[in-house]
Amino acid sequence: MAQATIGDSEFDRDTAVTPRPDHQGGPGVFDAHLSQGWTILRAVNGGYLLATAARALGQVLPHPDPFTITAHYLTPSGPGPAVIRTDVIRTGRTMSTGQARLLQTDSAGHEVERLRVTASYGDLDGLPDDVRTSAKPFAIPPYERCLGRADGPDVASASPFSSGSTEITERLDIRLDPETARWALGAPSGRGEIRAWFGLADGRDADPLSLLLAVDALPPTAFDLGLGGWVPTVELTVHVRQRPAPGPLRIAVSTRNLAGGFLEEDGEVWDSEDRLVAQSRQLARVLLP
Amino acid sequence: MAQATIGDSEFDRDTAVTPRPDHQGGPGVFDAHLSQGWTILRAVNGGYLLATAARALGQVLPHPDPFTITAHYLTPSGPGPAVIRTDVIRTGRTMSTGQARLLQTDSAGHEVERLRVTASYGDLDGLPDDVRTSAKPFAIPPYERCLGRADGPDVASASPFSSGSTEITERLDIRLDPETARWALGAPSGRGEIRAWFGLADGRDADPLSLLLAVDALPPTAFDLGLGGWVPTVELTVHVRQRPAPGPLRIAVSTRNLAGGFLEEDGEVWDSEDRLVAQSRQLARVLLP
Repeated sequence: MAQATIGDSEFDRDTAVTPRPDHQGGPGVFDAHLSQGWTILRAVNGGYLLATAARALGQVLPHPDPFTITAHYLTPSGPGPAVIRTDVIRTGRTMSTGQARLLQTDSAGHEVERLRVTASYGDLDGLPDDVRTSAKPFAIPPYERCLGRADGPDVASASPFSSGSTEITERLDIRLDPETARWALGAPSGRGEIRAWFGLADGRDADPLSLLLAVDALPPTAFDLGLGGWVPTVELTVHVRQRPAPGPLRIAVSTRNLAGGFLEEDGEVWDSEDRLVAQSRQLARVLLP
Repeated sequence: MAQATIGDSEFDRDTAVTPRPDHQGGPGVFDAHLSQGWTILRAVNGGYLLATAARALGQVLPHPDPFTITAHYLTPSGPGPAVIRTDVIRTGRTMSTGQARLLQTDSAGHEVERLRVTASYGDLDGLPDDVRTSAKPFAIPPYERCLGRADGPDVASASPFSSGSTEITERLDIRLDPETARWALGAPSGRGEIRAWFGLADGRDADPLSLLLAVDALPPTAFDLGLGGWVPTVELTVHVRQRPAPGPLRIAVSTRNLAGGFLEEDGEVWDSEDRLVAQSRQLARVLLP
């Protein structure tokens, strides 16, 4: 199989949004089809949903790239048709702000909102070159020494992701740092951190939209705390800071504040040129089994 | 002067919102008056604006406390009248989500949106007691050994905040860790961190709303990097995780990714009982003088 490219890949096809003409509710209204391919158990992955909404916003705002984007997850999405209703909040010279609502029709024929997104967009290619980032890339063993799906049942079978439909795992090339995969062997570190190499399985390189997927694609940090169960996202914010260079990404996600049935997850994404290309934070509920 | 209390203080009076009756645009529409007392130079403090919008949301949502709240700052606010238009997005059993738009009328009589807020609310008092937070409180010298406004011109006069109208400094009791105040002496550490004790000058204790002010009230971390100028917030997200105990707060704000004319600022707020009560992150522009 030839390597997929940005614009011609599973991810691009599955995040496609089609503008409705004016007489059908447009402009600013888009049809999308949430693909079964990005589900974990029955739920559609939150990062994939965010990327799909972001793609619609990119079509109505005068700037191409999400600089900071926030989603509140309201109700669980399922595979199938969805509508994205966008509003332009403000347009400026260097940045613009918009809102997107992603909705699905329930069995009674009512539109139900799945997520509400607010974002400020700009042009990553128009930023000055200054980089004074003090953060250093985190340590992780080479890709070849990290653990992927092909490494047998150890990682895959112990994960709640492996029961039921887990089609997203076939679309991702995630290689976990063995040190942060011990939960899969029943020996979580208790530190609440997951580190991994990340790519799309079809070889498509990363871009700002796929970064939105990447930050929500690793196993939950709760696993590394020894907690099973479901950790649904309440709110996810992503800052995209640079256009990622080609090649695999390195992602570290960690939590340091598990209390009252909620936890935060902080993510950082480094590209192959050692640049901190995205930072994320989410608030999630911890629903114990 | 007697110590102010939650509900009867400068902060409470200045964040008051008055619902408009139905025949004047209600329900869900509130009048507010942005006070000169929370300005830095000519700008109204972003945390104060967020708290005011949050107060309106607390009146329309069935849950009292902002668990996660995000504001996009669209145009600069000025002291004077403002309107807050709220929408309930979803109400659930344990959480609800809403949106607020804060607007002011320009000289031509048009409403201009200042900030757009999306938030999910819950009830902090209804959370289970489990706390497995792994984060530890950061180190800071005792309150008495930190530097406040009374410590002379060193800290105050070197700050851009000290020129022009800086009324907010009179409402806050901020004591900077001397180690993170060296920028005021012309010797920034270069680390990009500010640590401080934080209280309201009239002695009012902290609550979830004043936490929204607190995370945006310290001098910018850019000062500690040796950068002057203005650092306007693009987007600010705050997670409120516990109701703060009475007594002063400790706040640390740091940045580790200054690039392309933007930086992130991560804040953490600890209460007098050593609990991590709030976490914040903002994306800000760095406008050099």
